[in-house]
Amino acid sequence: MDTDVYVHRIRVRPSESDRMGVVHHSRYAVYLEEARTELLRRAGLSYRQIENAGAFLVVTDLVMKFARPVRAFDEVEIECRITSASYVTISHEYAVRVAGQAGPAVTASTRLACVGADGRPRRLPDEILSVVGVT
Amino acid sequence: MDTDVYVHRIRVRPSESDRMGVVHHSRYAVYLEEARTELLRRAGLSYRQIENAGAFLVVTDLVMKFARPVRAFDEVEIECRITSASYVTISHEYAVRVAGQAGPAVTASTRLACVGADGRPRRLPDEILSVVGVT
Amino acid sequence: MDTDVYVHRIRVRPSESDRMGVVHHSRYAVYLEEARTELLRRAGLSYRQIENAGAFLVVTDLVMKFARPVRAFDEVEIECRITSASYVTISHEYAVRVAGQAGPAVTASTRLACVGADGRPRRLPDEILSVVGVT
Amino acid sequence: MDTDVYVHRIRVRPSESDRMGVVHHSRYAVYLEEARTELLRRAGLSYRQIENAGAFLVVTDLVMKFARPVRAFDEVEIECRITSASYVTISHEYAVRVAGQAGPAVTASTRLACVGADGRPRRLPDEILSVVGVT
Repeated sequence: MDTDVYVHRIRVRPSESDRMGVVHHSRYAVYLEEARTELLRRAGLSYRQIENAGAFLVVTDLVMKFARPVRAFDEVEIECRITSASYVTISHEYAVRVAGQAGPAVTASTRLACVGADGRPRRLPDEILSVVGVT
Repeated sequence: MDTDVYVHRIRVRPSESDRMGVVHHSRYAVYLEEARTELLRRAGLSYRQIENAGAFLVVTDLVMKFARPVRAFDEVEIECRITSASYVTISHEYAVRVAGQAGPAVTASTRLACVGADGRPRRLPDEILSVVGVT
Repeated sequence: MDTDVYVHRIRVRPSESDRMGVVHHSRYAVYLEEARTELLRRAGLSYRQIENAGAFLVVTDLVMKFARPVRAFDEVEIECRITSASYVTISHEYAVRVAGQAGPAVTASTRLACVGADGRPRRLPDEILSVVGVT
Repeated sequence: MDTDVYVHRIRVRPSESDRMGVVHHSRYAVYLEEARTELLRRAGLSYRQIENAGAFLVVTDLVMKFARPVRAFDEVEIECRITSASYVTISHEYAVRVAGQAGPAVTASTRLACVGADGRPRRLPDEILSVVGVT
């Protein structure tokens, strides 16, 4: 199991703020997905290759806690790490911080399951199992 | 060619406003798509059936002019009509109004082309050609 | 505390499906918000009026479990009810179903807190407290 | 008038593809906004500073032509340049390319107008006028 922390950096897009000038809570799910996709890419695993091989990672559980707002144009750091994995699931934890701030704006966790193009559960591809340390 | 005007009604979602409290300009493309999809549905044509038959309508041109803002929670009317059609393309015009206001907030036009699952141009399904008056 | 269930109905927009043809998981947060906003409206409370009076409801906690996919163009029913409330918070539970299907596609819960325009916690407006049964 | 071309690079987010596996046409408006915001930032102008000073750039016209699809996970280059400017408006042109492909996937143009917090037209801040070459 890979417990390394990957920190993904993005800048909040103008379109991602709402009428209070802060990032709409639904957007963080998109940021988390971008961070864990990039975490895999850094480990040499391309989602596109995985999907071309007929394996899709779908979210089964999402928990998010919002402690403080993030604003349009803020630079954001998304800490992302794998917390557990099995032959069919991978769990991640996340902390989203505005660059330079101490406490996280958002903490979150997700659980992914591997499915085939038909939507039915299937074993994770060996390349992923190797990265997440399940053998 | 069907020149009937269909008026589609939606209420702006809280998440669709930006930091100025108004609908982000990119959102109108989504509203227009919803309106023209519903226009076809009223004519007895389901996008899902069309897509299951292997025909997809992709946007090739989009023009939007923004005259005044629309706000979160506003009720919006989207006038939509087909302005021309051929064996492979359909063009629409739109006017987006806040319910009760005279002048349109947004005017727009789109041109769609029919493609197959492989992304290559193909003839529109006969059911659509019949609705749009190309025979 | 209002334990009535409100059922909100929407049709999935074409733009809300992802490359697997199913609704992206981040979108459900938007559907839940639309449902709870409409629940309040049915009780005679307009978010716009509340916000114009300087009170904003921000999400502090979001939990979602995804059991089965929802597809583009599906008609969806979002069951929404208030499960608890205090002078500053309101909690909701939700079940999202494809019309005609028995089991929910998604179950979820949220906790909202009331803040002022400055982002600091404040007491919920009396009109809301009365609807949610906190007196 | 600044006719320099700025090339902005992004990677398509998984959530930005639709059921055909390609970027939904509405998303490009978001990419264009990110590109022109970054173009100004490279010239030393922060949107946040401009907005804090009470000036907002709103889109009045958007034209997009879609020549070929962009797919989830593609790396995209957005060429962006200012084509004309006045005391109250700025126009941009764009070409969106998949990295490594010759022809653009999307070409576009926008016209922005400067408004105050009240939504009424106002003169562009001097810092912008200086960057865009209107004096």
